[in-house]
Amino acid sequence: MTDESVLREKLATCTRIFSMQGLLGLFGHVSAYDPKSGCVFISPGMGKDKATLKANDILAIDLTGRPLEGPAEPPVEWPIHTTLHAARSDALAVAHLHSPYATLYAIARREFRPVTLQGALFADGVPLYTEAQLVKTVAQGERLVKLIGHRRAALLRGHGIVAVGRDLEEALFASLILEDDTRKAMQAAALGELEFFSEGECRAFATEDDWRRRAHRAWNYFAQLEARWDRQPATGAGPLA
Amino acid sequence: MTDESVLREKLATCTRIFSMQGLLGLFGHVSAYDPKSGCVFISPGMGKDKATLKANDILAIDLTGRPLEGPAEPPVEWPIHTTLHAARSDALAVAHLHSPYATLYAIARREFRPVTLQGALFADGVPLYTEAQLVKTVAQGERLVKLIGHRRAALLRGHGIVAVGRDLEEALFASLILEDDTRKAMQAAALGELEFFSEGECRAFATEDDWRRRAHRAWNYFAQLEARWDRQPATGAGPLA
Amino acid sequence: MTDESVLREKLATCTRIFSMQGLLGLFGHVSAYDPKSGCVFISPGMGKDKATLKANDILAIDLTGRPLEGPAEPPVEWPIHTTLHAARSDALAVAHLHSPYATLYAIARREFRPVTLQGALFADGVPLYTEAQLVKTVAQGERLVKLIGHRRAALLRGHGIVAVGRDLEEALFASLILEDDTRKAMQAAALGELEFFSEGECRAFATEDDWRRRAHRAWNYFAQLEARWDRQPATGAGPLA
Amino acid sequence: MTDESVLREKLATCTRIFSMQGLLGLFGHVSAYDPKSGCVFISPGMGKDKATLKANDILAIDLTGRPLEGPAEPPVEWPIHTTLHAARSDALAVAHLHSPYATLYAIARREFRPVTLQGALFADGVPLYTEAQLVKTVAQGERLVKLIGHRRAALLRGHGIVAVGRDLEEALFASLILEDDTRKAMQAAALGELEFFSEGECRAFATEDDWRRRAHRAWNYFAQLEARWDRQPATGAGPLA
Repeated sequence: MTDESVLREKLATCTRIFSMQGLLGLFGHVSAYDPKSGCVFISPGMGKDKATLKANDILAIDLTGRPLEGPAEPPVEWPIHTTLHAARSDALAVAHLHSPYATLYAIARREFRPVTLQGALFADGVPLYTEAQLVKTVAQGERLVKLIGHRRAALLRGHGIVAVGRDLEEALFASLILEDDTRKAMQAAALGELEFFSEGECRAFATEDDWRRRAHRAWNYFAQLEARWDRQPATGAGPLA
Repeated sequence: MTDESVLREKLATCTRIFSMQGLLGLFGHVSAYDPKSGCVFISPGMGKDKATLKANDILAIDLTGRPLEGPAEPPVEWPIHTTLHAARSDALAVAHLHSPYATLYAIARREFRPVTLQGALFADGVPLYTEAQLVKTVAQGERLVKLIGHRRAALLRGHGIVAVGRDLEEALFASLILEDDTRKAMQAAALGELEFFSEGECRAFATEDDWRRRAHRAWNYFAQLEARWDRQPATGAGPLA
Repeated sequence: MTDESVLREKLATCTRIFSMQGLLGLFGHVSAYDPKSGCVFISPGMGKDKATLKANDILAIDLTGRPLEGPAEPPVEWPIHTTLHAARSDALAVAHLHSPYATLYAIARREFRPVTLQGALFADGVPLYTEAQLVKTVAQGERLVKLIGHRRAALLRGHGIVAVGRDLEEALFASLILEDDTRKAMQAAALGELEFFSEGECRAFATEDDWRRRAHRAWNYFAQLEARWDRQPATGAGPLA
Repeated sequence: MTDESVLREKLATCTRIFSMQGLLGLFGHVSAYDPKSGCVFISPGMGKDKATLKANDILAIDLTGRPLEGPAEPPVEWPIHTTLHAARSDALAVAHLHSPYATLYAIARREFRPVTLQGALFADGVPLYTEAQLVKTVAQGERLVKLIGHRRAALLRGHGIVAVGRDLEEALFASLILEDDTRKAMQAAALGELEFFSEGECRAFATEDDWRRRAHRAWNYFAQLEARWDRQPATGAGPLA
């Protein structure tokens, strides 16, 4: 396989894993950028079934959002992906998800702070994008890029999240950990005050290499599950994602 | 197929999608009105399995609740449907559901206000019907019609919801979004104060055409899932719907 | 089939429906009493898989707990069943369940009051049995009988529930409604004060005949689902029941 | 089969049961110690699919963490297991899990106290290990051993739990009960103050023999479910475990 076809396969797998985990379905999309060709590969938008997505359902656009193959339109929020890919060499993969729990932090008036050890991945914080609109223009995308800075993720008010990685493994891991940490914060809050990890504790918890290794192991784990997944919609599933 | 048989098929599909999503099961029913023939098509009541519903399980009644074919009785709350169909030309489809989360807003003493961007669909609010009874008479139905006014949905105290649309796609989308927004409000409330979207923000978020397009894309998405659904009851499902 | 074999089949079905709904599994048992023969049929205790239960897994005991067939011991809490069957002619069916949500009312310091219209079934209240023990003796069973009085159900502190009916249909319906009402109360409480239904509203909501009809329709509904259930354990299910 | 092969089979089954119950997946591992051979059998770490684990996926290490067969590395937190096995003759089985609900107690600032009758198993309390690190060294393991003392379990701050037993049946039961009790506490807290069981009530509730018998019955129950489990990942499952 060429590099490109490998990347398309991986992106389709990543999309199906997110679908399996309930983080992407009606809404949400994932992209991977190939700086050599200038090509952005991106999963399709709202009407498409993500659990059964194949490599040839992946769309290719350039950094201006122009479709590179045929007439199929990318998701309306393509500027989330292109502006981040253009701005950061460590954002070769970008996930935009309506994650059921992480989105709640973007609804409750609370700053994100990690409550789990793995949440230390977000030692630098997760800023909140407050505009009451989809990110449909390059100008909006650039404001989001500026807000995120060098961080791994942002919350979109009443909407969802954006997470980035140097590869799809890292973007998957960051998204899963953000969802898990915010879920636990939300559920534990019923019992009383939360115990957060300080920035110092977060930094002491793991090196960049540790995170990278964990992201790749997590990919292996979820790819095994996805390979044997029966692709059934979760009956009575609940949250739209 | 005739228009009528197309509508029956669509109504059966819509009922099965609601069943798959855990919004309709033991309780709840959906209707579609054909103004040309004066015929109201409606899904059956309490005893019937909704996950396996076929077009020929759909009942036909007139606007007075009289069965138009054979002796089968419509659901006891048929006046919800007939009064809305009669009163509003933009309510050709009506869903009455015991949605697990939306019903909670009708239990907690709080006015509905959207916390998600998609919840902007309900910029006009979602009024609460407070009578401690099923809606079994035309008089009750008319009070509900008056309460809803031009709005897209109402909450029924300790009971469920009613959502309307110009077609089944719109009624499905409105019901799913209302459930998702109220779920997120309920879950985020554990963490602190909620951040609502103002009426102005809601109106600026999308045009009527945007909503219509989204509703039709969402229908396509869920129809694909429903077509490959194994129809298993969700083991340990929990909330009665 | 004889009356007895019909009753055994129905009891096995009822146990499997409870298992499907996540209300009975490791813990919990259901019984039906035949006053003519003095025989109590009861589902087996802790070690047995309830999702696959057959009529010939049902045990028969007399009102003193003595096994009527072979050496198989009934569940250790058999006095819950025998004392209720002996004391009340309207308690021919008795369910003891570790219902995930109803049990929470027996943990939080709050009196049960219905928040849903269907919860009006419990207009007479649901008293709390406070002893910190399993109900393993006739004396305990009799204290529980006295506590329940003429009511349809009781909560067992930090433990579970007991619900009764004139037949298994009624005991199933009462258990499902109690679980659903308490679940909704618990979830809605996150948003603020709850809106309860008054005793008067509850009594006005339905007649005894209405309840009976609903119970039988609900049985039909769930029996259809159970008949096509694949009997899979709910992966990641969570609450022990 | 030899004792060793029986133990490996049992450990694989125990791991799969935890996976089925949503308590072990990406994270978590279980071990069993054979004091005669000095061999610690342990399930593998992060990258491996636990739902399909076989006896020959089990690793063998000695009490210093050295692999006894081939080059495969044990999970990085092996000191949790070896230090407990070495220190306590009643800790022949050790589970380390990222249990979704029990972990919440280790996030909310609250001391664990049981709210369910079965939670009386933890009459001695469940102490909290507060270090913001994985337990990767023998020194950390020994601090954890000291903290636990003679107790059955500990909470690891923002991380997970450790539970011990004289055999895998007991470690499984303790883990399931801890998860269930903490889940119920968390969910009931939404409704108001919790009603805990006092230490005296806990001790009066059951003898050591009662607990042992229950643990073995619970194992039988879950082993039956696991044997017919289709091993599907729980679509939209949510919490990472």
